[in-house]
Amino acid sequence: MSNPALDTEASRALPEIFHRHKPEIGAALRKGLAESPLQLYQMLRYSMGWSDVSGNPIAATEGKALRPTLCLLACEATGTPAEMAMPAAVSLEFIHHFSLIHDEIQDLDDVRHHRPTLWVVWGKAKALVAGNALRTIADQSLHRLLEGGLSVTAALKANALLTAGYLEMIEGQYMDLHFEGRTDITLPDYMGMIARKTGALIRCSLVIGATVGTRDPAIVEAFRKCGESLGLVFQVRDDLLGVWGDEASTGKPVGADLRRKKNTFPVVYAMSEAKGKDGDTLRRIYGQETVDDKDVATALEIMEGVGARTYAEDLASKHCERAIDALSAVEMDPQAMKDIKEVANFLLVREH
Amino acid sequence: MSNPALDTEASRALPEIFHRHKPEIGAALRKGLAESPLQLYQMLRYSMGWSDVSGNPIAATEGKALRPTLCLLACEATGTPAEMAMPAAVSLEFIHHFSLIHDEIQDLDDVRHHRPTLWVVWGKAKALVAGNALRTIADQSLHRLLEGGLSVTAALKANALLTAGYLEMIEGQYMDLHFEGRTDITLPDYMGMIARKTGALIRCSLVIGATVGTRDPAIVEAFRKCGESLGLVFQVRDDLLGVWGDEASTGKPVGADLRRKKNTFPVVYAMSEAKGKDGDTLRRIYGQETVDDKDVATALEIMEGVGARTYAEDLASKHCERAIDALSAVEMDPQAMKDIKEVANFLLVREH
Repeated sequence: MSNPALDTEASRALPEIFHRHKPEIGAALRKGLAESPLQLYQMLRYSMGWSDVSGNPIAATEGKALRPTLCLLACEATGTPAEMAMPAAVSLEFIHHFSLIHDEIQDLDDVRHHRPTLWVVWGKAKALVAGNALRTIADQSLHRLLEGGLSVTAALKANALLTAGYLEMIEGQYMDLHFEGRTDITLPDYMGMIARKTGALIRCSLVIGATVGTRDPAIVEAFRKCGESLGLVFQVRDDLLGVWGDEASTGKPVGADLRRKKNTFPVVYAMSEAKGKDGDTLRRIYGQETVDDKDVATALEIMEGVGARTYAEDLASKHCERAIDALSAVEMDPQAMKDIKEVANFLLVREH
Repeated sequence: MSNPALDTEASRALPEIFHRHKPEIGAALRKGLAESPLQLYQMLRYSMGWSDVSGNPIAATEGKALRPTLCLLACEATGTPAEMAMPAAVSLEFIHHFSLIHDEIQDLDDVRHHRPTLWVVWGKAKALVAGNALRTIADQSLHRLLEGGLSVTAALKANALLTAGYLEMIEGQYMDLHFEGRTDITLPDYMGMIARKTGALIRCSLVIGATVGTRDPAIVEAFRKCGESLGLVFQVRDDLLGVWGDEASTGKPVGADLRRKKNTFPVVYAMSEAKGKDGDTLRRIYGQETVDDKDVATALEIMEGVGARTYAEDLASKHCERAIDALSAVEMDPQAMKDIKEVANFLLVREH
C-alpha cells in the first residue's frame, strides 16, 4: 500500500456509518419487496439473502449495503434527515441485486456468498425474469420518495438520474463482455468501462442522496465528483483483491482473476507496459484455453516486474484523496465529513 | 367466427389509424435510440428492424406498432394532440421490444420476422444486456413527456403507470414459465396469466395515453376497462391463430402451438372440459417428449369436439364488444370512437 498510514486495522474495519443505518435499510428493503404468493417473490427473497430455497426465513446474509449507505450519507451531509432518501437507497440496492442476478447468468457463476445462485436453483429463464422484476421493483420504490414529502420536481429528477445511471451501468456491462477474450484493451478503454460498469451506480448513489437533500447544484456536483473517484477506488481495489487478495478474506485463491482470464486493472496495465518477451508471454497466457498454476506464477512475476500492483495502489490512493477533496469546497457537517473519509479509506484498504 | 358480420375483408385490413401515425412513430423511435459508437446500439437498431447484422440501414421491417398506436389513439380521443403522448408511445414500443429480446433468449427462438434473433447473432450474454439497455432507454424516453409541456405531476403519474404495467407483464412472463410442461392449468389461472403477460402493456398503452390527454379520472378509467378487454381479445386471437391459423398468413403450420406443447387458451379450455378418455388423451399428448402429426390431429379433434374453438371465438367477440362499450359512457370525438371500433374489430379477426 502506497500510503501505509491509512492502512491500519481500524481503517479496514467497516466504518460506523454502515452500522448506523443498517437496521433501517434492512427494514425498508423488506418493505419494498412486497409479500406475494407468486414464487417469483420467493426467488427474490432468496436472492436478497433473507430466506432459503424453500422460502423459510434464515438469518440474513446481506452484504454491507454500500450503495444505500452512500445515498443516505450524502443526504445526511446536506443537513436533511437520511430517511428522506430511503426510497432511493432501497432502489439502488435492488438495482445492484438485479445486476448480480443477470451477471451470474451471463458468467455462469454458480455460487454467491456460499449459496447456489438463482439460475442454478430455478433455471436461467426464471432467473432472468426475476432479475427484470427486481429492476422494476426498484423503480417502484423510487416513486415512494413523494410519500416522504419530496417535491414532485426533485422526485422526477432523482428518477432521471437513476435511469441515466443504470443505462451507463448496462453500457459498462456490455463493454466488459465486448472486452472478453481480447488482449488489446488499453488502460483508457478499461477505465472507461469500469467508470460505467461499477462507477455509475456508486456515483449515482451519492448524487441522488444529495439531490434529495438539497437544491444547491454546487453540493450535488461536489458529490458527483466524489462519487466518480470513489467508484474508481472501489473497482481498482476489487481488481487488486482479485489478483493478490488473501484467500481467507476473499474466499478466492491468489490469482483467481488471472485463472479466469479476466481483464482487470493490473493485467491491462501490465499488458500495455510489459515490453518485448514479457508482454508477449502475458498475452499468450491470456490467449490460452486454460491457465494453470505455472501460468499464474509467470503472470504474477511479469505484473510485479512492471510495477502493476504499486501503480494500481497509487492510483486508488490518489482517487481516494480526490474523493475527499471534492467535498472540501462545500460546507458540511463535521460528522458527515468524517463519515466520508472513513468510507473512502475503507474502500481503499478493504480486504473483501 | 361467431359474429360473421364483423369478419369481412375490410375489418381484417389494418385500420387507418395504424397508417395515420406510422411516420411520426417511426421518426420518434429513431430519435429515441441515440446514435452511439457502442456496438450495443447497433444490436438494438438491428432488433428494431432498421439495419442488418453489420449495421447497414435496410428497408425497415417494423411491425404495426400496436402499443404506440393505442397510446396515441387514447390521447387523441381526449381531445389532446397525439404528439403530446409520443414519448410514452415510444417508451411502450421499446418495452415491447425489450420483452421480445428476453423472451427469445428464454424460449431459444432463433428467428423473428424471417431474421435471426439477437442472441443467435451476438450470443446470449450480449443479447440479455442489450434487452436491459432497451428497457432503460424506454424509461429515458418517458422523461421527454415534460419537453412536450406535460405537467410534472402527470409525467410522474405516467411513469408510475408504466412501471406498474411492466411489473405486471414480468409477473405474467414468470407465471407462463411456471405453467410450462403442466397439464393442470385451469382457465382462471390462464386468464390471470395472459391478463398480465400480454394484457398489462396493452391496457397500459391506453391508460397512459388517456392520462397524458386528460385529468378526468372517469375517462382514464373507461380506457383502463377498454384496454383490459382489448388485451384479452388480442391474446385469445393469438392463441386461435397458433392452433388454427393459416400457414400462409402466420408463417406457422396448423397446430404449431400444439407441437410446442404451449398452454394456450383453447388447449387449457379443452383440458378442463374434455371428460374421461379424451381429457386423458390430451394430457398424455402434452406429457410426451415430442408431439407428432398424428398427435396434432388427435388433439385438434378433441378440441373441436368440446367446442374449444367456438368458445374462444365467442369469448374474444364478447370482450371486443366490452372494449367498445367501456368507452360509450365517456364523451368522445366521433372519429376517435370510429378508430377504437376499427382497432377492436381488427384485433378480433386479424390473420397474423
